[in-house]
Amino acid sequence: MLRFLTAGESHGPALTAIIEGLPAGMPLDVAQVNGELARRQRGYGRGGRMQIERDQVEILSGVRFGVTIGSPVTLVIRNRDWENWRQRMDPVAGSDTQPVTAARPGHADLPGTIKYAREDIRDILERASARETAARVAVGAVAKQLLRAVGITVISHVTNIGGIWAAADEIRTGDVAAWASRLQSSALNCLDADAEERMKEAIERAGQEGDTLGGIFEIIAFGVFPGLGSHVHWDRRLDARLAGALMSIPAIKGVEVGAGFAYAALPGSQAHDEIFYEAERGYYRRSNNAGGMEGGISNGENIIIRAVMKPIPTLMRPLASVDIRTKQAAAAARERSDVCAVPAAAVVGEAVVAWVLAEALLEKFGGDAWGDLQAAIDYYRRRIR
Amino acid sequence: MLRFLTAGESHGPALTAIIEGLPAGMPLDVAQVNGELARRQRGYGRGGRMQIERDQVEILSGVRFGVTIGSPVTLVIRNRDWENWRQRMDPVAGSDTQPVTAARPGHADLPGTIKYAREDIRDILERASARETAARVAVGAVAKQLLRAVGITVISHVTNIGGIWAAADEIRTGDVAAWASRLQSSALNCLDADAEERMKEAIERAGQEGDTLGGIFEIIAFGVFPGLGSHVHWDRRLDARLAGALMSIPAIKGVEVGAGFAYAALPGSQAHDEIFYEAERGYYRRSNNAGGMEGGISNGENIIIRAVMKPIPTLMRPLASVDIRTKQAAAAARERSDVCAVPAAAVVGEAVVAWVLAEALLEKFGGDAWGDLQAAIDYYRRRIR
Amino acid sequence: MLRFLTAGESHGPALTAIIEGLPAGMPLDVAQVNGELARRQRGYGRGGRMQIERDQVEILSGVRFGVTIGSPVTLVIRNRDWENWRQRMDPVAGSDTQPVTAARPGHADLPGTIKYAREDIRDILERASARETAARVAVGAVAKQLLRAVGITVISHVTNIGGIWAAADEIRTGDVAAWASRLQSSALNCLDADAEERMKEAIERAGQEGDTLGGIFEIIAFGVFPGLGSHVHWDRRLDARLAGALMSIPAIKGVEVGAGFAYAALPGSQAHDEIFYEAERGYYRRSNNAGGMEGGISNGENIIIRAVMKPIPTLMRPLASVDIRTKQAAAAARERSDVCAVPAAAVVGEAVVAWVLAEALLEKFGGDAWGDLQAAIDYYRRRIR
Amino acid sequence: MLRFLTAGESHGPALTAIIEGLPAGMPLDVAQVNGELARRQRGYGRGGRMQIERDQVEILSGVRFGVTIGSPVTLVIRNRDWENWRQRMDPVAGSDTQPVTAARPGHADLPGTIKYAREDIRDILERASARETAARVAVGAVAKQLLRAVGITVISHVTNIGGIWAAADEIRTGDVAAWASRLQSSALNCLDADAEERMKEAIERAGQEGDTLGGIFEIIAFGVFPGLGSHVHWDRRLDARLAGALMSIPAIKGVEVGAGFAYAALPGSQAHDEIFYEAERGYYRRSNNAGGMEGGISNGENIIIRAVMKPIPTLMRPLASVDIRTKQAAAAARERSDVCAVPAAAVVGEAVVAWVLAEALLEKFGGDAWGDLQAAIDYYRRRIR
Repeated sequence: MLRFLTAGESHGPALTAIIEGLPAGMPLDVAQVNGELARRQRGYGRGGRMQIERDQVEILSGVRFGVTIGSPVTLVIRNRDWENWRQRMDPVAGSDTQPVTAARPGHADLPGTIKYAREDIRDILERASARETAARVAVGAVAKQLLRAVGITVISHVTNIGGIWAAADEIRTGDVAAWASRLQSSALNCLDADAEERMKEAIERAGQEGDTLGGIFEIIAFGVFPGLGSHVHWDRRLDARLAGALMSIPAIKGVEVGAGFAYAALPGSQAHDEIFYEAERGYYRRSNNAGGMEGGISNGENIIIRAVMKPIPTLMRPLASVDIRTKQAAAAARERSDVCAVPAAAVVGEAVVAWVLAEALLEKFGGDAWGDLQAAIDYYRRRIR
Repeated sequence: MLRFLTAGESHGPALTAIIEGLPAGMPLDVAQVNGELARRQRGYGRGGRMQIERDQVEILSGVRFGVTIGSPVTLVIRNRDWENWRQRMDPVAGSDTQPVTAARPGHADLPGTIKYAREDIRDILERASARETAARVAVGAVAKQLLRAVGITVISHVTNIGGIWAAADEIRTGDVAAWASRLQSSALNCLDADAEERMKEAIERAGQEGDTLGGIFEIIAFGVFPGLGSHVHWDRRLDARLAGALMSIPAIKGVEVGAGFAYAALPGSQAHDEIFYEAERGYYRRSNNAGGMEGGISNGENIIIRAVMKPIPTLMRPLASVDIRTKQAAAAARERSDVCAVPAAAVVGEAVVAWVLAEALLEKFGGDAWGDLQAAIDYYRRRIR
Repeated sequence: MLRFLTAGESHGPALTAIIEGLPAGMPLDVAQVNGELARRQRGYGRGGRMQIERDQVEILSGVRFGVTIGSPVTLVIRNRDWENWRQRMDPVAGSDTQPVTAARPGHADLPGTIKYAREDIRDILERASARETAARVAVGAVAKQLLRAVGITVISHVTNIGGIWAAADEIRTGDVAAWASRLQSSALNCLDADAEERMKEAIERAGQEGDTLGGIFEIIAFGVFPGLGSHVHWDRRLDARLAGALMSIPAIKGVEVGAGFAYAALPGSQAHDEIFYEAERGYYRRSNNAGGMEGGISNGENIIIRAVMKPIPTLMRPLASVDIRTKQAAAAARERSDVCAVPAAAVVGEAVVAWVLAEALLEKFGGDAWGDLQAAIDYYRRRIR
Repeated sequence: MLRFLTAGESHGPALTAIIEGLPAGMPLDVAQVNGELARRQRGYGRGGRMQIERDQVEILSGVRFGVTIGSPVTLVIRNRDWENWRQRMDPVAGSDTQPVTAARPGHADLPGTIKYAREDIRDILERASARETAARVAVGAVAKQLLRAVGITVISHVTNIGGIWAAADEIRTGDVAAWASRLQSSALNCLDADAEERMKEAIERAGQEGDTLGGIFEIIAFGVFPGLGSHVHWDRRLDARLAGALMSIPAIKGVEVGAGFAYAALPGSQAHDEIFYEAERGYYRRSNNAGGMEGGISNGENIIIRAVMKPIPTLMRPLASVDIRTKQAAAAARERSDVCAVPAAAVVGEAVVAWVLAEALLEKFGGDAWGDLQAAIDYYRRRIR
């Protein structure tokens, strides 16, 4: 029963996450968490705020001398700009003399203020901001450390920005380490250097025109053994849980597993991954259209899942909108100025995928103690050989 | 806190569902539930079993004289073929002299037997079978009745089979009743008569070749008021919950909301739905790329969500596989013989979408009693005008 | 993630339970489940209905040839009297010409009809009836089989009826098998034969006077190893979960662990169970005031927990009440006529305790497959020696 | 779906709580939260630490200008002694040269280290410490503010310390304000001044002897309207949830509702609360043995629930124990030195009861926005008159 809650507004004092249910005795490296936070902030096409906020996590509980002790882990990421915002965001007292009242299309602004009966859109946008995903990246970074210790690595790469496709199918069968290092040197987290050049140009152009771009990223989990998730009840299916997690990232509007939407045009005779067996290798496939899951269960192949991000809805040339106080036409307010956040979203995607896999892993193996978990996995690996 | 569990094997005695948390005093029409079950069984390209099973639901609890009483509702769907299967599926005693040992690619067969340490694949395939979705259709039919009483209608239509696209974008803004009746007369639940003809031919051809076809369906929820779901925590987002629910349907490999994957190629200036206001209409949009949700919250426009189904993996010409007992190559077993189940999957899609909306509705409004729920919704509708 | 839902009215067609999350490959003996159902129906002082209903469970899913297969298990207990009640309880159509309108004190009648806005108290009392506990006994009987396979036995005995105390402290350290057989021959599930005689006389007398009696029972779980439950978060504490489960049994008004309320008068120097160690025995205590749990975690001693049951509120001499339709004074209706149901409640108590322990066990050890669970427990037992 | 997580070690940097699901627009007064934290620290018989830690809450999210905005609320309570403990509790690096190895009876020390495979008992005792309850008091203080706005007040009083009983039955029907003020001036949160004197003497004496005392406290919720909780499923019962919450407080070993364990000796004819009706008053009772709940549902009378606390197990004269490293006999370590913490536990009891009631309230009425919640409750109050 691994679970977490996150909290925090974009311009409030801090983002906080509490993770409950980690095994005790697990090494937890803060530097790696900070590394993931830095990866979320990188990326060609990011606006000024990313420079302000070099995120650092502080651990307030659950870890002692770099090792978990079984109790809930608190992660705090301070918002460095907080002092400048205190007057407009004070938790205890005051009032905002300049409420935001022009609802931005494509954001939670309008449905959020309606639902929660707010008169200042800031009450909504502060939490609906993508800043919230920093907390999830921190949480996912912890999950990644858990996974890595049992041989599972989660990486991402960008396959499309603004309609420009990268040719990157090779990664799905490649060697993790090689791909990972190649991605590290890419400004857009993209494997196809030619496509990346064109993507950069498109971002440049969009930026000059005050426009924004969306795109697609792919998450791959290497080293997942068969048996995570389950067919027995709908809410235990690994694909359902991964899809829900990815769709919960702000601006994500679609998710597909393996061949995904291309399955519509594939006849059954070409669609499925035939099964083979060799004594040293165990069961294996020569194709992976299924994206590593069958019947809602991991099947031992790499898990492959993609998500599409809509372009950032805050434009330099604001969209037509309405003032929620006067009900008169108004230009949508500007809150930030990234041109393209797809590479950052991919990092968030890794985080949520890592979380779901860690959750499924602990459900399957229990493991209050790090050694118990390792022993259970070892037993299982021997059993299923 | 609406919740449900389903149970039942494909050739066991029955499918059962328990729904907990429905308001008391809600009229529940069994005929409508049976109507939905029948819709799931219809569809060009379905195999012989659909004739055997004319599903009927039996209510064992929670409803008295056609009205809910607040206690859990039990729905049972008998498997009519049970007597013929009793010997191979007896719960209490016996053994199967002919276990299934050839794992079918594209099914839960192999990962399921590995995970659960089974030696007879039947132990897995019986529950992993799409038959399970009949229980979810029954559950969804109850949710639909709840939604309908507050003005929300959930329908579906097929937009692609085997790569053949229907031109059906109009439906998203059309009049529900008109569309619904037009769909009723379609053998494939498709709005584009021309495309439907070509789809039928493709199905015919695939059937003759022992092949199968997948496709895409679209779910539209009309009449959803703003404010279902929330931006405040990832697992409360309506889009995330809908995506998870749709992806949990067997054979679904992708989900997209509104413009979905097409967002990748749309610049921000063209992607977002500008906001307008008129006194009689309230807030409205002239486009609906967002598919009725912004920031994980319904925004008052129709909810539009699509899913892709892979072709049925059980082919007349079996795929290469392995015998789990001998580890020798084996031809995958045949269990059923539909050519294309996309129209049926669309009905299941409606059911799970209806469920998620009903859940979100009750979370927002509470409502132990039918009248209390109606009063809360009336109040909200007046408040947000 | 073991979970269950139950459903069913007292005079409806059946009680149903779905259990989700049992390991696959676990032997499940229906006769043992029926044996527990019979134990619930026994007991000196029970009314006529107990003769009508000789409960039998039917399994509709999740079990094949006497072994679980990982999918949800459906248990159905038919209400034998259903045909006589069909007209007053039909799910689909009809109406009750004789609604119950006199609210009985001590039942859910009044708060239930208020909450759910019902005009016929039968809509409430049918589910609030103690008959619901038959489903929980069936569920608990499954949990008991799981526990027994890992060496944990849950038994109960009655320690007080109508104020008459049994002297039964010895059981807590005794040999399970001996106690269990001794209890089997007791009409009141009581270890103290003298006290039992006086209890019987008290029941006899109360029955003659149209009165009813409550009492206290004790649940003991033998063989629980240390480490179930947790101190790390309030809702993981084993004592909290056991207390919640016991208090959820109809008519239970108090729960205490180990020395329980007697702790108030014990100074700390006499209250706590000192810790000793011997190579062959491991850690042990010479007293068990803590009732087998410290810090919300099982500590390896027997778990001891008691609950008090109020006297059955349906009396032959009805209490003063009000007609919910007329608001005039009315005599409370009679629905059944047990004099004392404490021995039956003890059986329900065993069931819910067994469930909570099984839940905690699977949380700790995972175990999709029976062999994996056993291996994980073996490993743990060796690790903690 | 109100929920929270807490985190934090006794000597770590801080306690943290995240509350998710509060309605937006609710006034939240930090001073009141601090007031409750101060109440937890008061009390005759508390040791030195209570002087060190004058707890203050800091809000990091979810509240703006003193009003909730719908997003998760983060509460942080700094541990003022942290700087002195940093070396022994550093999250990131270091090691403890003086691990705690003597397990204290009556604490989580031994079962916790076994479960989580720790070699330094500090890894367990830091979280198992009653310090954790400060976070719950803060969370409960928020719940109390929500309840107070709808007319529900939760108070507590001590009825027994060390076996000395207070005569305080009157409170259950009294005027809240009067009782509350009278309790404020009591050092032991006790209504019976005579008994309180004797309790103080007993505490004094125990302190001199290096001993400790337990006791009993009672929680009363005034103003609860009928209909919270439900009879329809075991885990919705209000009494079950309250019992679980109270039993989850460290050192609590028993819980009883209304007449509680005294029900065992009451015949049915004297046990139940007869129902009356008057036009202006609505339904009412002349007795409240049921403690305000029937069938797991609040019935409109005051909710009355008691809990027993065992004496603090850390004594000046240590108990016999074992060193977990050497397995040799050892004297249990001393970590703190309160003589009696029953008044503090009563404050924690109020907090957890308030939380459960707030949870049940929001489940029943929904209410994303403060005004919507109020309107729903108004409607219900009119409906049930």
